[in-house]
Amino acid sequence: MPLWKIYHPAGSFTAEDKKILSERITGLYAGIPIPRFYVVTIFEEVAKDSCFVGGEPHNKFIRFKIDQIARTLPGPVIREWWMRKIDEIIAPYVKDRGYDWEVSIDETPFDLWSLQGEIPPPFESVAEKRWVKENKASPYTLAEKLPVSLILTPGLSDR
Amino acid sequence: MPLWKIYHPAGSFTAEDKKILSERITGLYAGIPIPRFYVVTIFEEVAKDSCFVGGEPHNKFIRFKIDQIARTLPGPVIREWWMRKIDEIIAPYVKDRGYDWEVSIDETPFDLWSLQGEIPPPFESVAEKRWVKENKASPYTLAEKLPVSLILTPGLSDR
Amino acid sequence: MPLWKIYHPAGSFTAEDKKILSERITGLYAGIPIPRFYVVTIFEEVAKDSCFVGGEPHNKFIRFKIDQIARTLPGPVIREWWMRKIDEIIAPYVKDRGYDWEVSIDETPFDLWSLQGEIPPPFESVAEKRWVKENKASPYTLAEKLPVSLILTPGLSDR
Repeated sequence: MPLWKIYHPAGSFTAEDKKILSERITGLYAGIPIPRFYVVTIFEEVAKDSCFVGGEPHNKFIRFKIDQIARTLPGPVIREWWMRKIDEIIAPYVKDRGYDWEVSIDETPFDLWSLQGEIPPPFESVAEKRWVKENKASPYTLAEKLPVSLILTPGLSDR
Repeated sequence: MPLWKIYHPAGSFTAEDKKILSERITGLYAGIPIPRFYVVTIFEEVAKDSCFVGGEPHNKFIRFKIDQIARTLPGPVIREWWMRKIDEIIAPYVKDRGYDWEVSIDETPFDLWSLQGEIPPPFESVAEKRWVKENKASPYTLAEKLPVSLILTPGLSDR
Repeated sequence: MPLWKIYHPAGSFTAEDKKILSERITGLYAGIPIPRFYVVTIFEEVAKDSCFVGGEPHNKFIRFKIDQIARTLPGPVIREWWMRKIDEIIAPYVKDRGYDWEVSIDETPFDLWSLQGEIPPPFESVAEKRWVKENKASPYTLAEKLPVSLILTPGLSDR
C-alpha cells in the first residue's frame, strides 16, 4: 500500500521531477503514519498517440491509478479531503504545467498482500510501529500483533 | 470512468486502428449517457515473449483490463449484456483479425475519483448533464448536484 | 483469472526465466483446478529510475500485481496460506536473486469477465471441467452450467 501507477507522455518528467513527486506522495502517506517503504510509485511512459480521451488522441494527459491496501478511508468527509489532498500534492507537476489529468483509487484486500515475504502486521500494532521506525519489513512475534494502545474489557460475570 | 488498458503485441494496431477502436469504446459509454471525456483508453505494447497464457508464450493475445467508476452495472442481465456488447465493439480489431483475447472489468469506488481536480458530480445530476454537453470538467454549484429529475415527497405530519 | 502483472527492472529475467516463472504460476492455479489458459502473466520492464519505494529510486524492486477473478479465497487461513504459497513459487526468481519485492492481489467481479467472447462457465460446472480438459474456451449448453456434483433436495410438501 499504496501502489501509484503514473501514466504520462514521454518527456513530461525529468529524473529529478520523478524523485520529488514520489517524495511528496510518500510524505502524504508517512503522515498517517504508515511505513515509508509501503509507498511505491511507478512512472510509465505512454507511447505517442496511444492515449485517448473521449475517443481523441491526447498527448498532454496524465492518468494516476492508485491501489490503497493498508488503510481504508472511512466516511465521505475523509474521502473527499483525501482526493483534494492528492490534487494539491501533484498540482505543481501536473496542473501548473498545463497537463490534463485524472486520479482514481481502488481499495484492495489488506489480507492479500505481502512485502518481502512478510504479511504486513495489523493496523496500528506494535509491529507496524516498529516497521515505521525501521522502515523495512521484518518478521514479528504474536505479541507484536497487538495494538499499541491495548484496551481490555472486564471479563464475563454471571450477571 | 472508465479506464481501458489494452495490452497488445507490437504491430497489432495502426495509429488509425487505435483511433477508431477508442472512438467505438467511447461511443458505448456516451450512449449511457456519460461525458465522452470520462472515457480513457491507453494502448500498451507488450514486448515479445513477455506475455504468457497457461504458461506458454502467446504473441497473438490481447488483454483488455477495464476500470469502471462512474456507473455500476445493476443485476445479472445487464452485466451479461454489457460483456457481450463490449465483445461486439472490439471484434473487428481482435477476433476478426485472428487474435486471442480476454476482457475483465473492475468496479472501483466512485468517491475516490477526480478529474482536473474536480470531484465528478453525482449520478444524473444537473452538473453531470452539463458536463456531458460541454464535454469537459468544470466547477459546479450545490444546486447543480441535484438530480435532473427531482422528486420530492410530502413533509412529515403528525398523522 | 488470474492476471499477473510483473513490474521488473530491465534485465532481471531472461526469456527462459519468464517461461519457467509463468509455468510455476500456472501450476499453482491449475492445481485448484481451473483451466490452465485462465492464467495470464505479463512481464513489464520498468525504465531505470522510474520505480520509487518510500520516495527513493529502487532499481532492484519487483512488484507483483495480481487480479483474481474465477475464485475467491474463503477465510483467513486460506488467504494467508495462498500468500505464502505465492511467495514460495516466486522465491527462486526474486528473493534468491537479491531483489526486493511486494505482492498484492485484487479480487474482481466474476460476472464482468469474458474469454474469447465466452462468459466463463460457473464454478465447478460440467462446462468448467470440460474447459480444464480441453484447455480452451468454447461455447457450452445450459445443461453444462450445472455443477459436476449435482445435489437436489426434496420438493416442497404441505408439512
